[in-house]
Amino acid sequence: MKLWTDCDVNAEVDRFVLSGETALDQKLLKYDVIASMAHAEMLEKTGILTAGENKKLQQALESILELDENGEFLIKPEEEDSHTAIENYLIEKTGDAGRKIHTARSRNDQALAAERLYVREGLEKIISSSKRLIEVLDKTSRKYNGIPMPGYTHMRKAMPSAVSMWLDSLKEALQDDIVMIKSAKKMINQNPLGTGAGYGVPMKVDRELTRRLLGFEKTQQNPIYVQNSRGKFELLMLHSLEQVMIDISKMATDMLVFSTEEFGYISLPEEICHGSSMMPQKKNPDVLEIMRAKAAIFSSYGSQIAALITNLPSGYSANFRLTKEPLIKGLETAEECIRVMAIVADCIEVNEKRCRDAMTPELFATEKAYRLVETGMPFRKAYRNVKKNLK
Amino acid sequence: MKLWTDCDVNAEVDRFVLSGETALDQKLLKYDVIASMAHAEMLEKTGILTAGENKKLQQALESILELDENGEFLIKPEEEDSHTAIENYLIEKTGDAGRKIHTARSRNDQALAAERLYVREGLEKIISSSKRLIEVLDKTSRKYNGIPMPGYTHMRKAMPSAVSMWLDSLKEALQDDIVMIKSAKKMINQNPLGTGAGYGVPMKVDRELTRRLLGFEKTQQNPIYVQNSRGKFELLMLHSLEQVMIDISKMATDMLVFSTEEFGYISLPEEICHGSSMMPQKKNPDVLEIMRAKAAIFSSYGSQIAALITNLPSGYSANFRLTKEPLIKGLETAEECIRVMAIVADCIEVNEKRCRDAMTPELFATEKAYRLVETGMPFRKAYRNVKKNLK
Amino acid sequence: MKLWTDCDVNAEVDRFVLSGETALDQKLLKYDVIASMAHAEMLEKTGILTAGENKKLQQALESILELDENGEFLIKPEEEDSHTAIENYLIEKTGDAGRKIHTARSRNDQALAAERLYVREGLEKIISSSKRLIEVLDKTSRKYNGIPMPGYTHMRKAMPSAVSMWLDSLKEALQDDIVMIKSAKKMINQNPLGTGAGYGVPMKVDRELTRRLLGFEKTQQNPIYVQNSRGKFELLMLHSLEQVMIDISKMATDMLVFSTEEFGYISLPEEICHGSSMMPQKKNPDVLEIMRAKAAIFSSYGSQIAALITNLPSGYSANFRLTKEPLIKGLETAEECIRVMAIVADCIEVNEKRCRDAMTPELFATEKAYRLVETGMPFRKAYRNVKKNLK
Amino acid sequence: MKLWTDCDVNAEVDRFVLSGETALDQKLLKYDVIASMAHAEMLEKTGILTAGENKKLQQALESILELDENGEFLIKPEEEDSHTAIENYLIEKTGDAGRKIHTARSRNDQALAAERLYVREGLEKIISSSKRLIEVLDKTSRKYNGIPMPGYTHMRKAMPSAVSMWLDSLKEALQDDIVMIKSAKKMINQNPLGTGAGYGVPMKVDRELTRRLLGFEKTQQNPIYVQNSRGKFELLMLHSLEQVMIDISKMATDMLVFSTEEFGYISLPEEICHGSSMMPQKKNPDVLEIMRAKAAIFSSYGSQIAALITNLPSGYSANFRLTKEPLIKGLETAEECIRVMAIVADCIEVNEKRCRDAMTPELFATEKAYRLVETGMPFRKAYRNVKKNLK
Repeated sequence: MKLWTDCDVNAEVDRFVLSGETALDQKLLKYDVIASMAHAEMLEKTGILTAGENKKLQQALESILELDENGEFLIKPEEEDSHTAIENYLIEKTGDAGRKIHTARSRNDQALAAERLYVREGLEKIISSSKRLIEVLDKTSRKYNGIPMPGYTHMRKAMPSAVSMWLDSLKEALQDDIVMIKSAKKMINQNPLGTGAGYGVPMKVDRELTRRLLGFEKTQQNPIYVQNSRGKFELLMLHSLEQVMIDISKMATDMLVFSTEEFGYISLPEEICHGSSMMPQKKNPDVLEIMRAKAAIFSSYGSQIAALITNLPSGYSANFRLTKEPLIKGLETAEECIRVMAIVADCIEVNEKRCRDAMTPELFATEKAYRLVETGMPFRKAYRNVKKNLK
Repeated sequence: MKLWTDCDVNAEVDRFVLSGETALDQKLLKYDVIASMAHAEMLEKTGILTAGENKKLQQALESILELDENGEFLIKPEEEDSHTAIENYLIEKTGDAGRKIHTARSRNDQALAAERLYVREGLEKIISSSKRLIEVLDKTSRKYNGIPMPGYTHMRKAMPSAVSMWLDSLKEALQDDIVMIKSAKKMINQNPLGTGAGYGVPMKVDRELTRRLLGFEKTQQNPIYVQNSRGKFELLMLHSLEQVMIDISKMATDMLVFSTEEFGYISLPEEICHGSSMMPQKKNPDVLEIMRAKAAIFSSYGSQIAALITNLPSGYSANFRLTKEPLIKGLETAEECIRVMAIVADCIEVNEKRCRDAMTPELFATEKAYRLVETGMPFRKAYRNVKKNLK
Repeated sequence: MKLWTDCDVNAEVDRFVLSGETALDQKLLKYDVIASMAHAEMLEKTGILTAGENKKLQQALESILELDENGEFLIKPEEEDSHTAIENYLIEKTGDAGRKIHTARSRNDQALAAERLYVREGLEKIISSSKRLIEVLDKTSRKYNGIPMPGYTHMRKAMPSAVSMWLDSLKEALQDDIVMIKSAKKMINQNPLGTGAGYGVPMKVDRELTRRLLGFEKTQQNPIYVQNSRGKFELLMLHSLEQVMIDISKMATDMLVFSTEEFGYISLPEEICHGSSMMPQKKNPDVLEIMRAKAAIFSSYGSQIAALITNLPSGYSANFRLTKEPLIKGLETAEECIRVMAIVADCIEVNEKRCRDAMTPELFATEKAYRLVETGMPFRKAYRNVKKNLK
Repeated sequence: MKLWTDCDVNAEVDRFVLSGETALDQKLLKYDVIASMAHAEMLEKTGILTAGENKKLQQALESILELDENGEFLIKPEEEDSHTAIENYLIEKTGDAGRKIHTARSRNDQALAAERLYVREGLEKIISSSKRLIEVLDKTSRKYNGIPMPGYTHMRKAMPSAVSMWLDSLKEALQDDIVMIKSAKKMINQNPLGTGAGYGVPMKVDRELTRRLLGFEKTQQNPIYVQNSRGKFELLMLHSLEQVMIDISKMATDMLVFSTEEFGYISLPEEICHGSSMMPQKKNPDVLEIMRAKAAIFSSYGSQIAALITNLPSGYSANFRLTKEPLIKGLETAEECIRVMAIVADCIEVNEKRCRDAMTPELFATEKAYRLVETGMPFRKAYRNVKKNLK
């Protein structure tokens, strides 16, 4: 049953409006319950709930968490969203206490609260995975320390590089990424509860209490801004993760190129390769291509959110039903790419001989010019001198 | 079991590479079977299969179609794709005949054949839905024939318009869209079979036979181009549908604005509205907002495909595993939006009084200038004359 | 002076609104004049202009064309657009005839007419360049006929290919592209004149006459649709060109990879390479990278137009001021990329020895399996047999 | 003359490769000079330049700054970029000192240094404009303090809002934006100098000195990462500005809707409106539409950069020639939109009567339910009670 009506909406229209949202809400349910616990505490404090009612609600909410963890609390298609499923369950288990839970809140601030708790936890997980990847890179880099390899610009040999210089580049990149993810997390970690549908709640609320209970850093003040910040913060999260995805893509593409027969600097062990249905000899680096492909797609998640909120006035609109998918996909994609990159970076094999053989003389042309510079020749003359003698 | 190995791939890597593909392949399975039927016929003709083997394969393929229609032919997660599931089934049912089915083909040309048959059927369905929507618009337009309404530019009253002028604009738009969808369909309807992994098949094949059996208009000649045309044609399809989505979005947004209390030209019946969990009075036009939102997201499906193939050399790469999702989502989204718009266009109610009351004098300023023009006054003078008198 | 006021608009606001538009309008001016000639003819026929007035206008418009060709007809910043510049000039030269030219039209249908003539000519030029590129590819392909090279999937050696199979793939691609460009051109080639600001013109017009004079295939009927089709057709044009850009990108990326030292199948002559300021030995393929980069950016032109019209109701809005830039950039980019690719394709050199040396045994594994198939062994067994013996 | 050759590159190819870059480099020139000053100091300290040479270079660089400020230092088309123009000028003025300036650097680290100084200054300017806009909003909000207006969800009346609640929402938004812009600025403010083409410089450099002289917070360590961070940091900057653009777009769209005749809550003074060439009565809010349109386009600047670097391996590639345009456009667009919004927010007029008249009873339905809640009725019952009585 829907919260707002006993009558039926045109079934085809309803299916269309809800398309796919239930499955996504299932992932947010846990956080919706946690926020509801804080909201109920607040309602007790402001006198809407008795201590007994609150206790019953807390227990019922606790049991939703347990059911959900075992995959046994499923949102019914006709229930529209996690908010409805929770309220229906609470009413069934606690009667009027359940009918009171939605006092002083709207699904608009409730959804935001759940989403932000979900995002906060997700970003924390990604920070951990990134640190783990740094460790793996560090290990592999030290393993192949001292092996030179050509450095490329324009995909042409440029200057001497080294296996560890290459692997270390991703380490420094990830360190920067962690800073930006933390910065996004801090911004997003603001309390939306208590602002209702976007224009405040005309009754007493204690927003500082819910902030504290849910661990939000700060309480957003302006109720209109709370709703307007929804797509904006979703985008902020995706943008912070896009930074990591760029780095992952770069490393995956390097590995793809360096593991071709023609470059040959590294090899991928067979257990992370895929084969061909037609060509018996093939060992394909699908894992790297998929990482690169997921990174290539990644920015479209942000574009989707940007497109959804473009040219729209303030105030909640149903367009926000569709931001959940790119938000959740983005978070899950980033997490798995970082995790899988750690598997790959842990098992690539460097072909030392191919690396050393590739250190051909032209890589040292700049160095030659610098040696002339040390004799007092101006660099531009030294450059032209070396260039002439190359021919 | 995979086609290309008996050994195990790292399970986490494998899950990552296949992510979500099985569910999408389930939608393409039917078309994969149909293309396999044509391929088996061809193999009989070129002497690879005996008549008896072909017959057994045709029967087994027929039974997959039946199972699939009842939702009983499910691709197993470890099977990677529909191609593998089909070959495994055929081997189980027909032994060596099944082991022969993959002669002279690769999953690369096989996947393309299935996808093109799927797209062809999808576009045909969309053409039908569009024609149905034209009929509904025509009916509603005739129902409200003769009712004036203001025409807007910059969201400000501009010139006299009419309810039927407004509704008819979508009719003419859809007629153009059908032309472009047919044009895309014709282009995509080319036979890829017989080009293997993208470099041809070093044995006798009869590509004209498979073309004829599958109803393709033409056979693509260059095997490298066959693979390179994959993302390109996927984009072509999405682009042709984007034309419709633009029109749907425009109409949905018009309806949203015209049905606000402030404009008030039309009303939406309650059975296609949604409510609020907090505000008892609300009747929200979620259906229009979701249509608009799906249209807003639509171009990101094309962007995803563009991003996946950007900066890549010729030849199949695993990036193509990820083009299926935007392709299928795009097709399904366009189809449902057109269908739901027909429901809405069939039941909107025009508020004649609000329309007529809105026909305020400033809408006729241009006409006033034209009447002066008819007395011989140059337009620019007439324009300034009317403008001055407005103040 | 602006057409619609003698007073001043806030200068900073005006600069902001017009930002960059004047330079773009300069490119459209020629077509605006041509459409104005047809419009004046029409006004004579409907009795708004006398024969003498029309004659004077035609002469003045002719002289604008001449001035413009010599770069001597410059839109002044305060004039806002080509329409204003033209009307101001006509009034200056012909007095009241000039004050009549804007009868029965709005800048909205006028701008569309100019844009469509511009697009039509641009697409014709691109079709010519594409045909020219096909000829060049054909010549180069025949020059290197018979030279084998490896074919790649996943950037790993897959099957035997050939230099001409590779070059021919772009030829077939371009042939398809020309079909789609023609199809877009035919759709766009519709007469918008006579629909005013988007709600028709409340006086007599002869839209069939302007259609015939300007060579439009068809006249758009619904005035609201005329304006709504603006962004839609702009996108249609860009989408048709995106097909070519994908092909150009693929070829440029192939050339980049094949001309690395590590692959070495082709070389680029020095006169199309760029150098480094620091590394004396470098010969960089900037030309190929820029082609690839312009192709990578290309789809953002379409995204810009999609974003500009997303979530907006019917009727002209100032958002359309910003669609000109991606439209014009898209057309110019496609044209120059095709033209420059012809220069490159004409002068690349194939390194026959490197190509032949690269034809290593694993490329023939599939063929080996097929030879076993010809002895009667089912393909899947032959495949496993060959695979086992590779190890 | 180019730095790297005396010979000619194919003119058409060269024009293609450089397309439009010169004009963009002109904007970066100032920062390139400033970075060159620091680099020359460093070269003196490491013994490459004598004190006398350094002094001559500093003077010559100083004079470039002056010439540039007066628009008199123009990069010649054949010079490729600001780096070349500067070196050519220095050689002309100082002889061998000029020929030494490029020691221990590449255009790759040089371009990055200039870009980062440009971005840093640009972001600081944007922070100032944002603070100014907050002040204007605050003033206007206080001017109209106490005037109620309806709050909307789904573009339908939802709950009571107020003019100052609405205006204040942008204030809080901008405060968040400033935090994120500062966070991006801090990240970008890292020293790239001394890493050459991306693989370090095989001679003594003092990177800490250039860091200190240029006010960078930190020195990037890994030379490969320096180049890989280019597109990534460009995107970071654009993403931080996209947050502001979302807020600007929201406010502009609100103003557009609220200033329609139908809503009528605010008016725009005539001096910031534009007119129609055909309809004498029109006063169009082009300024708001263009703000909204520039915001709609904004995310495509980021998409362009993402597309340019997608699927590419490590190391500089010419694709980066094309990131300058979206970077510079993005910065300039954000700055002007914030500035123009301050003009608009300063002069909008609130129509108090229209606002008060619009406060119709349904806006208070939730409040009615809350009053029942205060009598002890559970919220869900109160909600249904109010809902039933509305009918």
